[in-house]
This record gives sequence, C-alpha cells and structure tokens, in this order.
Amino acid sequence: MSAARLTIDLDAIAANWRQLDRLNRGETAATIKADAYGLGAGAVARRLASEGVRTFFVALAEEGAVIRQAVGSGPRIFVFSGHMEGDAQLLRNLDLIPLLNSAEQFVRHAEALPRHPFGVQLDTGMNRLGMERAEWSAVREMAETAGPELVMSHLACADEPEHLMNDQQHETFLDMTAGLACPRSLAATGGILLGPNYHFDLARPGIGLYGGAPFVDARPVATLSLPVIQVRDVEPGETVGYGCSWVAKRQTRLATVAAGYADGLLRSLSNKAKLWAGDTACPVVGRVSMDLITADITDLAEEPEALDILGPHQGIDALAEFAGTIGYEILTSLGQRYRRRYTGARS
Amino acid sequence: MSAARLTIDLDAIAANWRQLDRLNRGETAATIKADAYGLGAGAVARRLASEGVRTFFVALAEEGAVIRQAVGSGPRIFVFSGHMEGDAQLLRNLDLIPLLNSAEQFVRHAEALPRHPFGVQLDTGMNRLGMERAEWSAVREMAETAGPELVMSHLACADEPEHLMNDQQHETFLDMTAGLACPRSLAATGGILLGPNYHFDLARPGIGLYGGAPFVDARPVATLSLPVIQVRDVEPGETVGYGCSWVAKRQTRLATVAAGYADGLLRSLSNKAKLWAGDTACPVVGRVSMDLITADITDLAEEPEALDILGPHQGIDALAEFAGTIGYEILTSLGQRYRRRYTGARS
Repeated sequence: MSAARLTIDLDAIAANWRQLDRLNRGETAATIKADAYGLGAGAVARRLASEGVRTFFVALAEEGAVIRQAVGSGPRIFVFSGHMEGDAQLLRNLDLIPLLNSAEQFVRHAEALPRHPFGVQLDTGMNRLGMERAEWSAVREMAETAGPELVMSHLACADEPEHLMNDQQHETFLDMTAGLACPRSLAATGGILLGPNYHFDLARPGIGLYGGAPFVDARPVATLSLPVIQVRDVEPGETVGYGCSWVAKRQTRLATVAAGYADGLLRSLSNKAKLWAGDTACPVVGRVSMDLITADITDLAEEPEALDILGPHQGIDALAEFAGTIGYEILTSLGQRYRRRYTGARS
Repeated sequence: MSAARLTIDLDAIAANWRQLDRLNRGETAATIKADAYGLGAGAVARRLASEGVRTFFVALAEEGAVIRQAVGSGPRIFVFSGHMEGDAQLLRNLDLIPLLNSAEQFVRHAEALPRHPFGVQLDTGMNRLGMERAEWSAVREMAETAGPELVMSHLACADEPEHLMNDQQHETFLDMTAGLACPRSLAATGGILLGPNYHFDLARPGIGLYGGAPFVDARPVATLSLPVIQVRDVEPGETVGYGCSWVAKRQTRLATVAAGYADGLLRSLSNKAKLWAGDTACPVVGRVSMDLITADITDLAEEPEALDILGPHQGIDALAEFAGTIGYEILTSLGQRYRRRYTGARS
C-alpha cells in the first residue's frame, strides 16, 4: 500500500455548486472538462446531475463519452472546442452540442450534421476561441434561423474584478448578441462573482465547484495524504536529494514520502511547499523527485505514518502559490497512481 | 478528432537501451517506474523484454501489475519503495522483489514473506531512500545469510560529472558493500556515463531510454502534435489569453491549439515555449490555459492543421528549459487525453 491516497469530497462539490447557484441569476451549469479538473468526470457528473445540474461543458468531444454514460440521455453536454474535423460521429452518437468557434466550423457542422443542435462561441477580446465580429456577422442570420442552443463568450480577467477588460468584454458581448432570441452565457466562476450583469441566462462554473479561487467561500474538495516510506536523522552539513540542493543546519529528522512530480506534485514545489502532520507543518527539503519527497519532521513528537500535502491547512491555492502557479494546475496535475476515494457518492 | 496526438517510438527506446548496454560493463536493466516515465509501461516493457532486458525497476508495488502482465513470469521486477505495510500480497502474487530501505522494512519482509527474494537499498549520502550505515551493519549478516538479489544505492549528482558528491558516494558504496558476494548496482543513466568504475554488476537506466539528458546521444522518443482549432488575426495593441499577458506589437496571425496544462503542457511554458510548423518556430503567446495554447503563426505561408510541441526541433529537454524544469517532468506530465500511437511495437 505504498500509493498515496487522494480523497475527493463529492458533498463539497455539490455544496459549492448550490452556493454558486444561489448567487447566479440564470441556469447554473457545470464545467467538467479535463476529467472534472482531474477529479474524475464520471463521479462528479453523476453527483451534480443528482443535485439538479442539467447542462455540462467539456473541452473535447472525446471527453463526452464518460459523462454521457454517467448522466444518461437527459442532460446537455456542450463542447468548447466546437466541431472539429472528424468529430461528427462522436457528436451525433453521444448527443453532444458543439460550440462553433468559426465560420469554418459553422459550415462543417451544417454540412455534416444539418439538424444536430449547436451553440456559438464568440470572441469578445480574449483572442483565444470564438468567432470574431466579422465572422459572426457573416453567419449570424443562418445561425439564428437554425436556432442555436446557446451563444456564449469567455472572460479573460474575471478573477480580477477591477480589471477594465471585464467591462469591455461585457459591452462587446451585449453588442454582438443584441436582439438575439436564444439563451446567452458569459460567466464561469469568476463571472458569477462579478455580479448579476454578467450572469445572463446560463453560467458555467468550473474551478469554484472544485474549491478554488476566485471563489473564496468554496469548500475544499481534495485531500491528499502521502505515506511515509522511511525516517532518518541527518547531521548538520549533510545534504538531501538531487543536486544536494538542501543542507541541514541542525540535527534534522527527515521523512521520505511516496509521491513526486510523476504524481503531479510539481517539481517547482522543491524546497518550498509544506507537508502537514495534523496541525504541524513539515517543510519540504531538497528537490521533489519523480516518486519521492523529503520533509523535515524534526518538530514532530512521533514518526508519522503519512503526511498531507492537500488538507485543512494547505488547499490547492496555497500549494499553487508555492509552485508559482494557480490552483487549477494543481488539480489537473493530480496523478494516476493515487488510490482515489470518493466521499458523498450517491447511487 | 480534437485530441492531440502523442507518438512514442519504441524503436528509439530500444536503440537507446542498446547504446547504453554497449557502454555498460554489467547487466543493463531498465527503469520503467511512473508508467515508463509517462510513455506507457506495458508497451515499453514488452518491447524492452524482446530486446533482451531481464530486469525492470518500478517505484511502487502497485506498478508491477501491468508490467508483469506485459513481460510474463521470466523477468525480475524490483520495487524501489521496498516492502511497505500491506505490500506482502502484491509482492508475492506478482513476484516482485522489494529493495528493502530500512531495518524496519527488513524485519517486515522477513516476517511476512520469509523465503521471498529481496534486494537492499543503501543510502550513500542522498538522504532520501535506503539504509544508513548503522542500520545496514545491524542487518547485514542476516541479509547475507538470506542472500539478497541485489544491493544498490543511488547517485544524487550523476548528471554533473564534476560534482564531488559522485566520488564520495562511490567510495561510501564500496565501503558499505566490501566483501559482499551478491550483485551490486550504483548507476542509472548518469552513472553509466560516469564510466566503468560506477557500473558494478547491474545498471538501471531510466531517462536515457526515453531520450533525455544527461544521455546527449539518445534518440528522441516522443513526438507531440497539437491540432489547430482556429486561426485569427489581431491588430497591434490587442491582447491574448488570461490576464491579457501578451500584447500584439504588429498585425499578428494567431493559431489556437487543442491542448493545455491539463495535458501536462506546464503553465510555466506561457509566453516562452515555441510550437513548430515543420522548420518554422511559432512562439507561444499568452498564458497556457487548461485546454488551449495560442501561438503566433504570422511567419507561416499557410494555415497549419497542427503544430508540434515535441519534435525534431524541440525535444523534452528544450521544452523543459522553457518551463524551468527537466525533461523528466515533461515526460511524466504527459496527459491522458492524447491519442497515443506506438511505432515499432513487436508482437
């Protein structure tokens, strides 16, 4: 049982969705792309469907399979990457709704799946995905005639409420969608928190469901506990790990735990993050290696059986800060070797 | 078909093993922990076994299952984390050989699996895994009587040939293993390259097999091609991606590709890495997002269908440098959404 244990609290995900749903004026969907941000799209989708979620969002058509199987034929599943070359069969068989990102995708969809539902993604300034103003003008009339399920765009700076980009994208979205009869969507988690102006008919939170910033009131979802393989004492002056990057300044007791960057515990956490034994922080010393991390446990009264890297004292955003990244990447990096346990699953 | 395509060249892995085997004086094993550094332990083990590899190394007992199934009952599979609480059944059923890291593990093994083979890992200064001098003295006589399959240690600085730590660990290893009758192992890829003094009876290369530094003559193994979802033109002054972190200085043509940090393309590559269209480099512009990356393709004559992030012009070490990490982490981060294709598989 050398594998680390990842516990995923489905009750917390459900509670976070309900809390966002109370804040949101329109329908509250759920974004479960990238395997529900690494937490398991099947289990998460099943639980959220039982909470009343009727609309899900994924990045790629390929991601639809496990979710369609989990939630059955009722809920809608939108695909952010739209209708790419070769997607038609998947879209049809799994009953997925592509969010068409360009005139090219619009034509491809109309030709391959003429009566199949679709949505439209507009670019309002992020310059990443979605139709530009000119493309949208060219296809809008045809699109309206066919009746899109949704017209949406995405905010580039929603986690910075004061950023001028938010107002600017909001105005562009209003302008590009003026007079449309179909439902509209602009907000993900950050957009919900920006306030009712941003809510439109549907919001599609992702990170907030999984306990991450900018939704500061979220309940944490993931707990990750790393088993201790071995404990040793080192003398002042001894070095630890690859490249001898850490040198003991005092007599130090070290614990080596069974997880590393191959498990998504980013190498940039080296000599920075902390592991936790109950309420006591144990600094990571030396480089994170592929399968192992070493921590200073000198301050512990007893040798621990395991140390936590995600838990009550260190959530995904705190860990992300040590690594110089964001909580999203901590989640999506969670590895395949963990024993995964779900709490709060419903049949 | 919006998923990116990862091609893994098993011929190159085999060629790299043969080249290291020619350099190495003793038996040349293969380290295929962490799912063969993210490339697929089953396929890699099968191919290497057909090349003549008789000994494999994994990090955790749990990793043994897929490999035992791939290579059958002949080859030896060593487990670096040793014999942890609850491992006995897995070790026995899969016929795995734990590398005992402490007196505690030695006793556990002797009690749970008295006649089951084992090896011993010694700590020679890395202070991460393995018995210290005192522990080893305490159990050495019992261990020798039982007859270990292997006594090994691991170098902390083998990728820096001039580092004093190498000589120091080498001497400590000689000293701790003096008079032993069983086979000894100190070298992984870096140790093989340090020269015959470091080879002992068995070397266990990992990264060199997969085309990474410090084995500069390695053949590259992984090619990763990202499909273009959409192309757009932006004007000078327009921004791209989350946080508006990139601003166009000229009229710029952008391509958005379908992969991001959820696919292991680290967020620290933002505004740094390049994507490649044949021989032309296309700089990543803006932040890498979860499922999408944006690149400047202004210099291309045609709109590309896909852009390469790992290929002839940019291998794992070059990409790692953009991300501030090492090739190992680029490999072990490779994601689950790719369509994986193996070339050079043998039945």
